[in-house]
Amino acid sequence: MLRSCTAGLRSIWALRGRREGAPRLSMDLQPARRLFSTEKVIHKDWALPNPSWSKDLKLLFDQFMKKCEDGSWERLPSYKRTSTQESEDFKTYFLDPKLVEEERLSQAQLFTRGFEDGLGFEYVIFKNNDEKRTVCLFQGGPYLQGVPGLLHGGAMATMIDIALGSCTGGAVMTANLNINFKRPVPLCSVVVINSQLDKLEGRKLFLSCNVRSVDEKTLYSEATGLFIKLDPEKSST
Amino acid sequence: MLRSCTAGLRSIWALRGRREGAPRLSMDLQPARRLFSTEKVIHKDWALPNPSWSKDLKLLFDQFMKKCEDGSWERLPSYKRTSTQESEDFKTYFLDPKLVEEERLSQAQLFTRGFEDGLGFEYVIFKNNDEKRTVCLFQGGPYLQGVPGLLHGGAMATMIDIALGSCTGGAVMTANLNINFKRPVPLCSVVVINSQLDKLEGRKLFLSCNVRSVDEKTLYSEATGLFIKLDPEKSST
Repeated sequence: MLRSCTAGLRSIWALRGRREGAPRLSMDLQPARRLFSTEKVIHKDWALPNPSWSKDLKLLFDQFMKKCEDGSWERLPSYKRTSTQESEDFKTYFLDPKLVEEERLSQAQLFTRGFEDGLGFEYVIFKNNDEKRTVCLFQGGPYLQGVPGLLHGGAMATMIDIALGSCTGGAVMTANLNINFKRPVPLCSVVVINSQLDKLEGRKLFLSCNVRSVDEKTLYSEATGLFIKLDPEKSST
Repeated sequence: MLRSCTAGLRSIWALRGRREGAPRLSMDLQPARRLFSTEKVIHKDWALPNPSWSKDLKLLFDQFMKKCEDGSWERLPSYKRTSTQESEDFKTYFLDPKLVEEERLSQAQLFTRGFEDGLGFEYVIFKNNDEKRTVCLFQGGPYLQGVPGLLHGGAMATMIDIALGSCTGGAVMTANLNINFKRPVPLCSVVVINSQLDKLEGRKLFLSCNVRSVDEKTLYSEATGLFIKLDPEKSST
């Protein structure tokens, strides 16, 4: 649900009522970005090399940056908190200011960017708009461990959700993720997630991806995803 | 892949050879537990209340602890690093000592227990062995955010993997996860994951779960999982 449909929530939550302690939609119309972030935090792009990146990751990054030079590929930036673009995408979603006063929620940040450099999710996504596909380079750090020495399946599922979502563009929500884990991923190694948009039916986007080793010889996982585009008409009602 | 089959890796990795920088199986037979952990860390049980737990979570915890009194239910402990039991389950898996010398791998810890109290995954699992089912009480902290105010789908997928895995017992690996996201989960709220073993076919375990609000009125997600039991015969060859 990386890019979950906040717009659609208006009707969902209006129908079911607000549970005690849960965020509700507010008529105060204060954008979440303003409530959650400082400009400084918003503008730091985390999809760039840092000293924790392995040789493999840096090498692949450089190769894809070269592909960006003719405009066929683009590197997607990544922010710890809500970016200006995301705020725009989800501009119909607003939080109750009282709730945001809660200390815990005021600390909120994007799941995959909450780790110190190298300990968690190190990744960058490149997009080829013409071919409707993306390539995600991912190095899973030592805080993402499952069985000793191996990446946790939940961390892999998280990156698959993000990689598939990067193929969609705009505001969408994940409706289904179906993941086949073929081989466990060694901790601190680099994997390449190739994702593509297979089919578009109305607001439904059907996507798929595979996760391979850098040398492409090892297939770690395969997955499909169904994402739903937000309906701007509904979101403003 | 929470409980991924390290035993089975022997043959997988033997067949495909070891990639540069990836863990390999060693003949030195040094158990991962000894390499990765101190006794002190191993023995701290994280599936117990701490000050970050909300009223909802504490209340549910107390209710299930009461159910444990007659022995029909049991609370499953949870460790940041490999527990003695897990080491036993995965005793055929050993890491290259040279690799463990790397600073990053020496920092390795369980993905879901690497956050400070209240910021990440707060959860406890109760198991009913007779009914082959578990109940996971989960509060997702502010560092697990997706869209502002909502839990990241990857964090939900991670907890679903863990919850399903808790129904299996012993050493298994996740082969498939199929998750339908019905409603986004408000950040810092508590959800209840009911998991059950539906079918056992040889070494294949078919499981399912649903994720609901505390009052059971909201269905957030439904999922199925296929887990594979390790084959002790194969693992020792």
